[in-house]
Amino acid sequence: MSYKWVYLFEELDAAEKKVGPGSWDRVKGLLGGKGANLAEMTRIGVPVPPGFTVTTEACNEYQKAGEKFPEGMWDQELAAMKQVESKTGKKFGDPNNPLLVSCRSGAKFSMPGMMDTVLNIGLNEDTVQGMIKLTGDERFVYDSYRRLVQMFGSVVLGIPDEPFEDELDEHKKKKGVPSDTDLTAEDWKHLVGVFKKIVKEHKGFDFPQDPYEQLRLATEAVFKSWNGKRAVDYRNAAGIPHDLGTAVNIQTMVFGNMGWDSGTGVNFTRNPANGERLLYGDYLLNAQGEDVVAGIRNTKKIAELQNDLPDAFAQFVDICKKLELHYKEMQDVEFTIERRRLWMLQTRDGKRTAKAAVKIAVDMANEGLISRKDAVMRVKPADVDTLLHPGFDPDAKKAAAKEGRLLAKGVNASPGAAVGVAAFDADIAEEWGKAGKAVIMVRPFTKPDDVHGMLAAKGILTSEGGATSHAAVVARQFGVPCIVGASDVKIDLRARQFNAHGVIVKEGDWLSIDGQTGEAFAGQIPTVHPKFEEQTDLITLLCWADEFRRLQVWANADYPDDAERARSFGAQGIGLCRTEHMFFEEERLPIVQRMILAKDEKERDLALDELLPFQRSDFEGIFKAMDGLPVIIRLIDPPLHEFLPNEHDLLEKVIEKRIKGVKEGLPEDESLLRAIQAMHESNPMMGLRGVRLSIVMPGIVKMQVRAIFEAACNMAQQGVTVKPEVMIPLTGHVNELKVIQPALEEVAKQVMSEKNRSIEYKFGTMIEIPRAAVTADEIAKLAQFFSFGTNDLTQMTFGYSRDDAEARFLLEYVEKGILPKNPFQTIDREGVGELMKMAVQKGRQARPDLEVGICGEHGGDPASIEFCHLINQNYVSCSPFRVPVARLAAAQAAIKNA
Amino acid sequence: MSYKWVYLFEELDAAEKKVGPGSWDRVKGLLGGKGANLAEMTRIGVPVPPGFTVTTEACNEYQKAGEKFPEGMWDQELAAMKQVESKTGKKFGDPNNPLLVSCRSGAKFSMPGMMDTVLNIGLNEDTVQGMIKLTGDERFVYDSYRRLVQMFGSVVLGIPDEPFEDELDEHKKKKGVPSDTDLTAEDWKHLVGVFKKIVKEHKGFDFPQDPYEQLRLATEAVFKSWNGKRAVDYRNAAGIPHDLGTAVNIQTMVFGNMGWDSGTGVNFTRNPANGERLLYGDYLLNAQGEDVVAGIRNTKKIAELQNDLPDAFAQFVDICKKLELHYKEMQDVEFTIERRRLWMLQTRDGKRTAKAAVKIAVDMANEGLISRKDAVMRVKPADVDTLLHPGFDPDAKKAAAKEGRLLAKGVNASPGAAVGVAAFDADIAEEWGKAGKAVIMVRPFTKPDDVHGMLAAKGILTSEGGATSHAAVVARQFGVPCIVGASDVKIDLRARQFNAHGVIVKEGDWLSIDGQTGEAFAGQIPTVHPKFEEQTDLITLLCWADEFRRLQVWANADYPDDAERARSFGAQGIGLCRTEHMFFEEERLPIVQRMILAKDEKERDLALDELLPFQRSDFEGIFKAMDGLPVIIRLIDPPLHEFLPNEHDLLEKVIEKRIKGVKEGLPEDESLLRAIQAMHESNPMMGLRGVRLSIVMPGIVKMQVRAIFEAACNMAQQGVTVKPEVMIPLTGHVNELKVIQPALEEVAKQVMSEKNRSIEYKFGTMIEIPRAAVTADEIAKLAQFFSFGTNDLTQMTFGYSRDDAEARFLLEYVEKGILPKNPFQTIDREGVGELMKMAVQKGRQARPDLEVGICGEHGGDPASIEFCHLINQNYVSCSPFRVPVARLAAAQAAIKNA
Repeated sequence: MSYKWVYLFEELDAAEKKVGPGSWDRVKGLLGGKGANLAEMTRIGVPVPPGFTVTTEACNEYQKAGEKFPEGMWDQELAAMKQVESKTGKKFGDPNNPLLVSCRSGAKFSMPGMMDTVLNIGLNEDTVQGMIKLTGDERFVYDSYRRLVQMFGSVVLGIPDEPFEDELDEHKKKKGVPSDTDLTAEDWKHLVGVFKKIVKEHKGFDFPQDPYEQLRLATEAVFKSWNGKRAVDYRNAAGIPHDLGTAVNIQTMVFGNMGWDSGTGVNFTRNPANGERLLYGDYLLNAQGEDVVAGIRNTKKIAELQNDLPDAFAQFVDICKKLELHYKEMQDVEFTIERRRLWMLQTRDGKRTAKAAVKIAVDMANEGLISRKDAVMRVKPADVDTLLHPGFDPDAKKAAAKEGRLLAKGVNASPGAAVGVAAFDADIAEEWGKAGKAVIMVRPFTKPDDVHGMLAAKGILTSEGGATSHAAVVARQFGVPCIVGASDVKIDLRARQFNAHGVIVKEGDWLSIDGQTGEAFAGQIPTVHPKFEEQTDLITLLCWADEFRRLQVWANADYPDDAERARSFGAQGIGLCRTEHMFFEEERLPIVQRMILAKDEKERDLALDELLPFQRSDFEGIFKAMDGLPVIIRLIDPPLHEFLPNEHDLLEKVIEKRIKGVKEGLPEDESLLRAIQAMHESNPMMGLRGVRLSIVMPGIVKMQVRAIFEAACNMAQQGVTVKPEVMIPLTGHVNELKVIQPALEEVAKQVMSEKNRSIEYKFGTMIEIPRAAVTADEIAKLAQFFSFGTNDLTQMTFGYSRDDAEARFLLEYVEKGILPKNPFQTIDREGVGELMKMAVQKGRQARPDLEVGICGEHGGDPASIEFCHLINQNYVSCSPFRVPVARLAAAQAAIKNA
Repeated sequence: MSYKWVYLFEELDAAEKKVGPGSWDRVKGLLGGKGANLAEMTRIGVPVPPGFTVTTEACNEYQKAGEKFPEGMWDQELAAMKQVESKTGKKFGDPNNPLLVSCRSGAKFSMPGMMDTVLNIGLNEDTVQGMIKLTGDERFVYDSYRRLVQMFGSVVLGIPDEPFEDELDEHKKKKGVPSDTDLTAEDWKHLVGVFKKIVKEHKGFDFPQDPYEQLRLATEAVFKSWNGKRAVDYRNAAGIPHDLGTAVNIQTMVFGNMGWDSGTGVNFTRNPANGERLLYGDYLLNAQGEDVVAGIRNTKKIAELQNDLPDAFAQFVDICKKLELHYKEMQDVEFTIERRRLWMLQTRDGKRTAKAAVKIAVDMANEGLISRKDAVMRVKPADVDTLLHPGFDPDAKKAAAKEGRLLAKGVNASPGAAVGVAAFDADIAEEWGKAGKAVIMVRPFTKPDDVHGMLAAKGILTSEGGATSHAAVVARQFGVPCIVGASDVKIDLRARQFNAHGVIVKEGDWLSIDGQTGEAFAGQIPTVHPKFEEQTDLITLLCWADEFRRLQVWANADYPDDAERARSFGAQGIGLCRTEHMFFEEERLPIVQRMILAKDEKERDLALDELLPFQRSDFEGIFKAMDGLPVIIRLIDPPLHEFLPNEHDLLEKVIEKRIKGVKEGLPEDESLLRAIQAMHESNPMMGLRGVRLSIVMPGIVKMQVRAIFEAACNMAQQGVTVKPEVMIPLTGHVNELKVIQPALEEVAKQVMSEKNRSIEYKFGTMIEIPRAAVTADEIAKLAQFFSFGTNDLTQMTFGYSRDDAEARFLLEYVEKGILPKNPFQTIDREGVGELMKMAVQKGRQARPDLEVGICGEHGGDPASIEFCHLINQNYVSCSPFRVPVARLAAAQAAIKNA
């Protein structure tokens, strides 16, 4: 027997047998998500129109063979059609009792709207007559036929949509009617003819009358759509591999447009925006599915179905419960009611907002549907991040409203606050976004073609569509704030502006949109961070998470405020306090500059003496905030020229003064310029900074260590438990520590003896230079702790200057797949990670109780946190706002790798 | 019994027993080089004045204990003195028959003049009288006594030399005599009194009269001098560890200044300048040793001793032969003749010029004194380098002489040609040298205090002293060209100028000195490279070396000329041909700039088409020169902005034009400036260059590969055997190769098919990014060869930008011992080397026949070459002039690690 390419929905057992036992994931890999779920629903007795699935393997074979069906596939499709015929009692192509089918894509991971669908396959001049006889509804049949011709024309034959839409608009105008539903059977019949002519004109051949030819071409079109630009872009953005292929689902057509006792809709079993345990969806009576999803007609809320079709609604509610119980997940379903009979066309795990994800996970665990561990695994760390994203300052919002800047209120489709300039198409949005502008993309509605612009935008605003429209679904998935259906926004695409109650917003004007409330404002509104302590579901989830994780979560905080916030988010220590940030403050910078430009040691020491009290009081605040917890303070790291004016600007100024003969201030400017030029480095990132600077100019770090220990002693005096850990940056050779560390410990001891106090402390180092990782055993002989500076470590290991790389080639590298991910966002495990692993192993060889952490940006990245777990670090340290994210990610890492 | 700190010269057996069998090196470690050799000479029957050695261990203990003699040491010294007394029949401090001794330092490695010596210890008011009775020479005795007071005063008590010298000069002036030898006993007696007063004035106590007090203080002074600034500087320069300590040699005084039948001298058993097998030395009659070495009196050539003192000379010749036979090395000896009796005071392996080193090694092997392997091990690779250093262009020299620019002819003390500006003291020489100026240091003579300036100078010129004077010895050791005793040069230190036959040369004026011939010229004379093929001894030695080495030696060559030269030096391939150097040539640069600034692909392709023929013809020349040998051509590496004008300069120009309202050329300048600014990178070393550039802009490398293969095919057509290897720079991730390598191989195949030829070729990559080393197994799946770019690899592994680091902290790091060596000169084995080892191992795992080499500067550094040998590389590649060095170093590495 030939290889099995086609599975009836009833053949789930066979599919499971093929992929091996207990692997729903591999079943989805074979049949696609949609196909697998149709089969699953069939198995558990949910009413599903009969049909079958052509496997993803067939798609991959098709691509591999240069777009040829694999051997036996078509025969199996034909055989499956016979089975469907026998189940429905209809016959494909039979003018008397014709079977009509849909042909839909369905990949392992949902890619909504990205690939192709053809409905009503099987209609032709003959079967149309049979259908009219059967349904007695000529209007419906011709409407269906014209849909087939149009969809087949555009999807399968590649004819643009416009000629079809133009003819339809033209005809409506001629008839003087506003809506499709106002057209008669005669009208649709006429349009079928017109549409068929369009096909002939564009392709040179007639619309195929043979139903099997229709089916064959539609199957192929779905296969091909896997490699369409839209689909490829989407997969790149969503991180879906390109070699999975799509399955093709062929399913008996049911019709929601067979009159006002028919309908179609999409629904979530819980609210995907906030997680409430209530059905959440839209439907349309007398309509076909695409009408709802496209968001072109304004839909009704699912609850209204109870009034329109109470029996169908009751059955629908039961099925939703059954599905949730079965899948133990919130479901996103599509259904059609054909003359009061309910059919389920699809079920899948529902996409949801971050807020909903947390609430649903916590609720389901509390309902006993899933375990707490499951709940912890259910929520993406990125969702936690989203929940802590800033929203608009309520007062500023009120003020803006008073000023008349509230433009419109639409559907709150994807939460979050976004501020950006209006861009009226996806290309502009992408261009501006890549150039670093914050952009709000404004469209009547979005289509799959627009995804590149939507991803580049900070926010999306549409005037049409509902909560399940394309724009809403995509925005939610990628966490882009989004408002849809803001019908007060009257968009004029040609003039590239919109009018909202008389306020004109042009392309490039500032907009602020609140995805939480659905409000769109003119101008910019300042944002504030949400209150963590009010997010009770999240707090519950994170407390559950804490029970599972092994990694501690610390925070990077430079100021007492930060430290307090970090602690309230659950930080168990400060992993990085950057002392130099304190230098940049307004009243301190002049002293710092005086210190740098000092003519002699004495002048320098005077300036350092002035800086000491500032540093000490900062440290006191942090120690107090972190009472009882460790605080790692990093000694000065950046090159000194960062504290001086920009060389370029000063040069321009000096040249100008010289040429214009301005004498005033010139000598000072010139001498400052000379000082700055003397400090110029061709690659400052790899120049005189970090421990190198401390060795060449030890006064600064001695002052810092003095400030740390004075602060520690003072706080200890007040009863605070202080645990200072002094961190030396940029170590590359153990001898650097041998030179500087004893000198600094000397200062520490001196201060403690002056203050007559003994404080427990540690000295340690950043590991951010490849050589430090390679020679970690040597370095650990002196350093009591390591903290990975993965930004610099990534820069040096790759030989990338981050700024230059991201501006010039790094994004191209990620797009082309040369780098699977941006290594500055997620640790490159093979390269940088290998060095980190080496550092931990060698370091612990020399010092078994070595404390190892990470304080680079990666410390807040879930995939990187997992790696830190795997190489046995003690903690990760990240920005305060990412502490909750890290707590969850650390728990998931522990559970996943138990 | 207490620990043994003191060894009589007769106790060599005991010393050997202590350090373990067969280790002359460890004996020298214990007794110092001088002490060990005095003991050895005593053992083989050479006449050595009786004495003993206080060990280096005692010195180290002394330092460790905070400058206290270790327990038992002083008692052992006293006991040894008793032994010496019994051997000489004299008694220390006995007014009737006084024993006088010298006290000299002697470390494991010779540090000529760097540490302290005190002569005539034992003289005081009483013993002076006994000595006068014994010798009947009052003048000699008071001269000796004043020498003791002066030397003791300055060396032991730390009084400056000047007051002593001033009084001596004053007295000579008063007496109206020019020379010390004109002074009478009375004069010296008077001066002893004056000198003693100086001691009293400076120190507040009298010159010690107790001989044992003199001995104790002298011993301590020698110990202390180990950590004197001069000694530390010297060790830093010579790479001698600081923890060895010095021994102290106490030896019966013999006197070369006991009349005209006495004398003293220093001598090499062969000519240390050119290696000739002839005694080479100087002596003075009626003088003490320091007079000869200091170069203050003009010495006589050793051959003249045959006339002055024929018996002593004959004995001396025999002893020299005996020593060479014994040590199997050319010896550097010191001797004294006291009333016709010959005493040997020191022997050690003689320092020599590079030329002499090679000749002596080859001669000794040919004489059967040593093996060929020994000969190969005897010559330092640096010596080979020196031999290939440029000398002056003979025609230019002749012309300069005709123009009257030949200033003087002195003793050719250290070979090599040097051009620099005159600096009249060591501090100026150092200051200017560090600032990057080429400096010739000009002094009447040099002292150990001057070493820092001598090391910073390109050449040294003294008006006094002979071939064994301080200046000559130090210059030879560090390979600095040097002329001594150029008595026509009349130096006026106060006016900071010299006068040579009326030509005035001021500080800062240009000088050219030829250390080979001893000629000094005014102005600058161009240099040329010496002819390798005429250096027959070197060629012989290198041929012997080739028999021992495993590593191949390739060369870095960008032009056909270079390649030919490299081949003549013995290169077995081209390891690095930098294609971008070709871009900088005058006629090409404008095309390159046009290519870079091209508005579109078409314009760029046009410029590339113009460049192609240039590149092709370069490659043709190289392939031809390397007929039959592999040629690795590296594709473009630097960032494109390197080919454009300097941003800074252009900015100044534009600002100036703008302010002055100059319109002409402004738009062009501004648009060029914009283009350059758009390319600006904050850390260009880690930006868009190497393979990254090739991926973003593949046109350039495709052109280059086309040029390579067109050249290869054309040459093959002419019968040349071409072995092109295309090298991709800066790879950090295997995916970079996956993208670019197939595209380039495609071009190669296309060209070969056009030319209808099949050429064997390889594609490979530089390993210069840490990540490439870490993931070498992945990279070797595509790359057929690796070539370590150790400059960049060192930069990234250390996180050092070489330019910035060397200007700002690297030298300080080396001085402070934070880095044992400059890692850009010698591979850092622990860090960078560890990554290299990993790369070789992982690379060969994936591809067992992987060809591995190095093309960084380190490829010509002997210590680095040894490391390349140890990690099993196939070859090293270095600049053509270093190929002979590398051949020798590779042989030594193989022999050493056999």
